[in-house]
Amino acid sequence: MAQGLSPAIDALVDDLKRLPGVGQKTAQRMAFYLLERDRQGALALSASLQQAADRVGHCQQCRTLTEEALCRICANPARRESGVVCIVETPADVLAIEQTSQFKGRYFVLMGHLSPLDGIGPADIGLDELELQLKQGPVEEIILATNPTVEGDATAHYIADIAEQLGINTTRIAHGVPVGGELGYVDQTTLGHAFSGRKQFSR
Amino acid sequence: MAQGLSPAIDALVDDLKRLPGVGQKTAQRMAFYLLERDRQGALALSASLQQAADRVGHCQQCRTLTEEALCRICANPARRESGVVCIVETPADVLAIEQTSQFKGRYFVLMGHLSPLDGIGPADIGLDELELQLKQGPVEEIILATNPTVEGDATAHYIADIAEQLGINTTRIAHGVPVGGELGYVDQTTLGHAFSGRKQFSR
Ligand SMILES: [Zn+2]
Ligand SMILES: [Zn+2]
Repeated sequence: MAQGLSPAIDALVDDLKRLPGVGQKTAQRMAFYLLERDRQGALALSASLQQAADRVGHCQQCRTLTEEALCRICANPARRESGVVCIVETPADVLAIEQTSQFKGRYFVLMGHLSPLDGIGPADIGLDELELQLKQGPVEEIILATNPTVEGDATAHYIADIAEQLGINTTRIAHGVPVGGELGYVDQTTLGHAFSGRKQFSR
Repeated sequence: MAQGLSPAIDALVDDLKRLPGVGQKTAQRMAFYLLERDRQGALALSASLQQAADRVGHCQQCRTLTEEALCRICANPARRESGVVCIVETPADVLAIEQTSQFKGRYFVLMGHLSPLDGIGPADIGLDELELQLKQGPVEEIILATNPTVEGDATAHYIADIAEQLGINTTRIAHGVPVGGELGYVDQTTLGHAFSGRKQFSR
C-alpha cells in the first residue's frame, strides 16, 4: 500500500508493482512519467493489457500463448507440417530460439514442467496432446529443449520414453559453457553438463 | 514493432516498452508473466492506468499531480496553512522529501523549470500563481529545492528575486557530498557545491 499524493496515483503505483522486477521506487517513476509526459501511452497500455488479458489463449497446435487459433509460427504451413518438433517449457523459450534463426521446425510448448510435488502431471503440461500429435503426423525428430533443471530433465526423460515407444528419434540441445563465457564465471551444474557432454576434438 | 507470437501479445509488449527503463526483453518477460500467471493483475493495472490517465490533474494549491481538488498534503489544514513553502520541480521530489519526515510545511510544485530555449517561461511553471499565493497568505520562509542544475539554479534565482521583493526570507537546501559517500565517487559539480557551501567546523 503506497502512501503518495492521491488514491488514483497510489492504486496505479500498487498495480505497476505487480510487474516482475518493479519495486516501489520504479513504480513511482513509471507512474509519474506516464502522467506527466505520456497519457496517450498510459491509455494505450491500458487497452492492450485488457485486450491481451481478455483474449489471449493457447495455440491449438503448439499450446503457446496467442489470441488466434494458431500462433504465428504454426500458422505457417511449412513449419506447422514440419517433421521436427522442439519441446520447450515456455513461450519465452520459443522467442529466444526464434531469435537464433537456426530452427525451422515446429514447437510444442509445455507451459511448465512435470512437478509431482506440486501436483503437476503429464496431462497438465499437455503430454497427452503431444502423444496424439506424434501418433498422427509423421515426426522424424523430437528436440528436447526443456531447462537443464531437475524438473526439466525429468520432463525430458518422460517425453523421451514416449518417443522411444513410437520409434521417433530424440535429441537434446547441448548444455555447456556459453560461447564467450569464462570457466570461472560458469556455475558448477553448467560446467558438469559441459564435461559430460564433451565431444571428440576435430582439427 | 515486436515480432512475437500474435498481434495482441506484440501490442502489449510494444506498449510496455513505453515505460521508462523497459526494453524488448523486459517487456516480453512482463507480458508473459501477466498472461501466464496474473491475468487479474493485468486487468487491475489496465483499470488503474485508465482511471489515472483520465482523472489525475493538478492540486489547486501546490500544483502536484492528484485527481482531487487538493492533494493529500494540502488537504491537511496544518500543512496547507503553513507559513513555510518548499519549492520543488516534480511530484517525485515531494515524495522523496516526505520520506525524510523532516519537513512539515507545504509545497509548491513547478512541474518543470525555467527553460527559455524550450520556450518555458515563468507562467508555464506556475510562478504567477506562486506570486499570488505569496502575496495572499503570511509566508515566513521559502525553501528552494529545485535541482542543482543550470536550469534549476536559474529558476531558484528567479523565485528568490520575487521573494525578496515581497520581503520573504528565502533559503536553499544544502548540496554536497552525500552522507556515506566517498569523495572519489562524487561528480565534480557536487564536489564544487560541497566546497562553496562549506561551513565553520564546530567541535
Ligand atoms: Zn502454435
Ligand atoms: Zn497540493
